[in-house]
Amino acid sequence: MNNKEFISELSRRLGYTVKDATTVTDSLIACIIQDLQEGKNVTIQNFGTFEVKKKMERISVNPLTKQRFLVPPKLNLCFKPNLTLKEKLKSNTSDD
Amino acid sequence: MNNKEFISELSRRLGYTVKDATTVTDSLIACIIQDLQEGKNVTIQNFGTFEVKKKMERISVNPLTKQRFLVPPKLNLCFKPNLTLKEKLKSNTSDD
Repeated sequence: MNNKEFISELSRRLGYTVKDATTVTDSLIACIIQDLQEGKNVTIQNFGTFEVKKKMERISVNPLTKQRFLVPPKLNLCFKPNLTLKEKLKSNTSDD
Repeated sequence: MNNKEFISELSRRLGYTVKDATTVTDSLIACIIQDLQEGKNVTIQNFGTFEVKKKMERISVNPLTKQRFLVPPKLNLCFKPNLTLKEKLKSNTSDD
């Protein structure tokens, strides 16, 4: 499902216009991103947790030229589905 | 940020009541989960893609008792942040 299909499905569910559904989705995403940028995890009920892990600055070596260089710090983002979501996905495969 | 904080931040941004913000979030999550359960990936603009990978049924062996058993099929969920999000997280660590 691409973004367009997602927004039209959401507008159908909420009884919103596509424009309002887009605004709502953008705000929700902006909320999540704002916190992730501050290095905070974001937990959404019945869904899961977006976790950011800070990878520190480190020195690495180019294997070809043997030259050393600095790798800047980085925020790694991962999503951990919670138990409810895992159960829903599990129960679904067994129905196939 | 836990779910309660997330909902109050979202209601502040949208100018909604907490109840409406909860309804909107639940609908958005339900949209995503419905498609994931059907084995379809979900892409959200400026954010990323939720991907489901089906792990087939397989036979495994208990290392202690050497007994063979059937591992049921499973849907594995992973989230791939898109480039926009990665850039936002990257640019943020360099500001620290």
